[in-house]
Amino acid sequence: MLNGRFILYVLGLLLIIEGFFMLLSGGVAYIYGEYDLLYHLTSAAISIVLGGTISFLTKGVEKHIGKREGYIIVSSVWVVFSMFGLMPFWLSGAIPSFTDAFFETMSGFTTTGSSILTDIESLPHGLLFWRSIIQWLGGMGIIVLSLAILPILGVGGMQLFVAEVPGPTPDKLHPRITETAKRLWVIYLGFTVAEVVLLLFGGMSIFDAVCHSFTTMATGGYSTKQASIAFYDSAYIQYVIILFMFIAGANFTLSYHAFHGRFKKVIQNEEFRYYLGFVLGISVVIGTVLYFTESNLGIERSFRDALFQVVSIITTTGYATADYLLWVPFLSLLVFVLMFFGGSAGSTGGGIKIVRVVLLLKNSYYELKRLIHPNAVIPVRFNNRAVSQSIITNVLAFVVFYIFIFGAGTIIMSIMGFDMVTSLGAVATSLGNIGPGLGEVGPSENFAAIPDFGKWFLSFLMLLGRLELFTVLLLFAPAFWKE
Amino acid sequence: MLNGRFILYVLGLLLIIEGFFMLLSGGVAYIYGEYDLLYHLTSAAISIVLGGTISFLTKGVEKHIGKREGYIIVSSVWVVFSMFGLMPFWLSGAIPSFTDAFFETMSGFTTTGSSILTDIESLPHGLLFWRSIIQWLGGMGIIVLSLAILPILGVGGMQLFVAEVPGPTPDKLHPRITETAKRLWVIYLGFTVAEVVLLLFGGMSIFDAVCHSFTTMATGGYSTKQASIAFYDSAYIQYVIILFMFIAGANFTLSYHAFHGRFKKVIQNEEFRYYLGFVLGISVVIGTVLYFTESNLGIERSFRDALFQVVSIITTTGYATADYLLWVPFLSLLVFVLMFFGGSAGSTGGGIKIVRVVLLLKNSYYELKRLIHPNAVIPVRFNNRAVSQSIITNVLAFVVFYIFIFGAGTIIMSIMGFDMVTSLGAVATSLGNIGPGLGEVGPSENFAAIPDFGKWFLSFLMLLGRLELFTVLLLFAPAFWKE
Repeated sequence: MLNGRFILYVLGLLLIIEGFFMLLSGGVAYIYGEYDLLYHLTSAAISIVLGGTISFLTKGVEKHIGKREGYIIVSSVWVVFSMFGLMPFWLSGAIPSFTDAFFETMSGFTTTGSSILTDIESLPHGLLFWRSIIQWLGGMGIIVLSLAILPILGVGGMQLFVAEVPGPTPDKLHPRITETAKRLWVIYLGFTVAEVVLLLFGGMSIFDAVCHSFTTMATGGYSTKQASIAFYDSAYIQYVIILFMFIAGANFTLSYHAFHGRFKKVIQNEEFRYYLGFVLGISVVIGTVLYFTESNLGIERSFRDALFQVVSIITTTGYATADYLLWVPFLSLLVFVLMFFGGSAGSTGGGIKIVRVVLLLKNSYYELKRLIHPNAVIPVRFNNRAVSQSIITNVLAFVVFYIFIFGAGTIIMSIMGFDMVTSLGAVATSLGNIGPGLGEVGPSENFAAIPDFGKWFLSFLMLLGRLELFTVLLLFAPAFWKE
Repeated sequence: MLNGRFILYVLGLLLIIEGFFMLLSGGVAYIYGEYDLLYHLTSAAISIVLGGTISFLTKGVEKHIGKREGYIIVSSVWVVFSMFGLMPFWLSGAIPSFTDAFFETMSGFTTTGSSILTDIESLPHGLLFWRSIIQWLGGMGIIVLSLAILPILGVGGMQLFVAEVPGPTPDKLHPRITETAKRLWVIYLGFTVAEVVLLLFGGMSIFDAVCHSFTTMATGGYSTKQASIAFYDSAYIQYVIILFMFIAGANFTLSYHAFHGRFKKVIQNEEFRYYLGFVLGISVVIGTVLYFTESNLGIERSFRDALFQVVSIITTTGYATADYLLWVPFLSLLVFVLMFFGGSAGSTGGGIKIVRVVLLLKNSYYELKRLIHPNAVIPVRFNNRAVSQSIITNVLAFVVFYIFIFGAGTIIMSIMGFDMVTSLGAVATSLGNIGPGLGEVGPSENFAAIPDFGKWFLSFLMLLGRLELFTVLLLFAPAFWKE
């Protein structure tokens, strides 16, 4: 029997937490004395009262839950948080359309960063703060999800990538999640504070520094400026953000090791080495081409623009300091391909994830060896360990779903009349939780012109991508509901 | 030790065969009394004399060969055939550029059908005939390759799809290949003759009927008309060609069963059912949209245009009766997605192949079930049989290579300055052995404007795709050359 009461209990508790963060953004509105204070307080009241009532009514319920409850809770949390999280935007009239408000909030909680806003600076500080903090909360959720919950649920081969997670062995769901979450959140918080401090040194206002740090560490990409990071004409600020985007796109357990002085573990990690290699290699290629095709940029700026955009896209942050669609087609295409790499497993980044891309390519290469030696058993090796066949199958199933959903999604966008490039870009960026796409939804554009149906559809893709596909897809499998 | 002498012996023999087919096109030139006769004879003489010398010098060699020799022979045949097959075009001056002549010939032997010719009707009949017959020969080669050779070599999970191939069991290479080849070539020839007769009934000239039948059965797509099949304003002719394209895109062993009255085997074949389903389903969607968006077409023409283009692309033939790039973006995109399906395994069609697409999607769907029941062993089923894990891994490795090469190829095309859509289309159509692409290489355009490097690169992609990737890629694996 599905433990529905426990699911409600958890959702109720989480709603109370969301309400308290609304109070926090209400505090910001109070400090700046702006009109949105009332709406933050109203939204907080609704969330806390409703969440409190639900959790009170379902209190004392049997706490032993299975995987099914886990899947349902995970998928519902993002939807429920978005449904309530849109209230400050919608009630205040800052985003008058309910669809737009939902899109903006889901884009926030999934740390995507696609926006329907066309004049971000016109928003009051409280709402800008709320917009940033929902990404930060989404990032927190993802860290727990990818490093503590999904490995237990067995989704997408994640059990492999977190073999070295500090914490107790995964025989009990509850203590492990709590313990892992605590340790990693401390790191998450620590990096956020460090980035704020470094951005302040660069002359950024405290408000903007906090907001940008929230959305950097979440690889979210919401900025308080319409021009995104291009607004800051400071090499220092841009390099600081590059650094923290890169950290946020790396496995948080590696940061944990680094904090404990175990740098060898970081450097020996195979996914990290590929991550670093891809970032540097592709940045050098793009930087070199930029230097020779955009002669006015100069050498430092060429490589900085390249590095910033590469890190921003591969980590699925989505900040911009340059419009890659204005680069020569080769470079825009390279950026588009990067959208499918995604961050590292166990980071706040989305996309397919580097480890999966590498495992797949390795498996294909090993298949050549298997053809040459048909009787030998040749397992794929990762981090110097043999990877089990079931994990390879799982990873491959994930990528096939990813590509299939990408293809089907692109066709659905084109039905709405969008050209091929826009359709490809909108779906790739939503599914990969990146932010900017191609064509009409490029980095200098926004998602305001997408019809309502498209906004709901892209929101769904953000959710799918953020929850590693399987978590959501399972709910559509009839077998899931059979006891 | 690699049996190099035997490889040369086989190539020599095959070269003699190619020479005799050149004599055949010389015969056509003789009948029409055109200037190209001399060049067919010269090319034939060179091929036969050289082939004869090589095979004479290597005669009496140990005939026992292993898989390695098999791979090398298969890959070399297509290159050698193209190198010699280009002579009639090049020596006659009809195609003055060596690169162009190679591209056109490789596009022929791989049954791709991409052309650099801008005025096809200006070619003499002998050359048009040669252009068609190289596709027909390529189709013959593919039938043997995919139904007799690759299953033995273990490439791309092909052993699965041909489990029911008539003929002796695969313990000896030579008798099986010969026997299977004979039976299937009879069917191939039979269908070609049948199509010629039916096209004659439709009023097509005997020359055009023969040429088009050659390139239909090979799913090649070279036409004797610049306007392709759109030249024939006859519904009858177009339906005849649709029928034979569809047959050529189906597994030839199914035709074998059909000829022996075993229709139940055809209808029960899972790949065939998906093939039929995809073709009808997508044609109905496209036909309906065409009817409502292109009001001047009328209902019959809308569905005929849809069916023709769908069958032409999914079977990787590449004939055109309409320019799908002029359709609304949704439809062009649907056609683009079709380029990745490809024909059935064991057909002359290229691409990923329907069985692989279906196996992959099934595996992904089954993975959901595996997540729900983590302790149950749930194999993918195809044709009511459990598919072994190693075949799934092999199929997945194939598709990953396919997508990786597609992505890398697109980037390489974009380096030459092509826009994203043209790059995507040129690579998809070359790798899938289709013919027309998107953008600047769409169905109303041709490949003449591609720079030389691009033509060599696309030719290589045609070869890769035609030989199921692994056959060629193996030659680049260092382990292959180690004893």
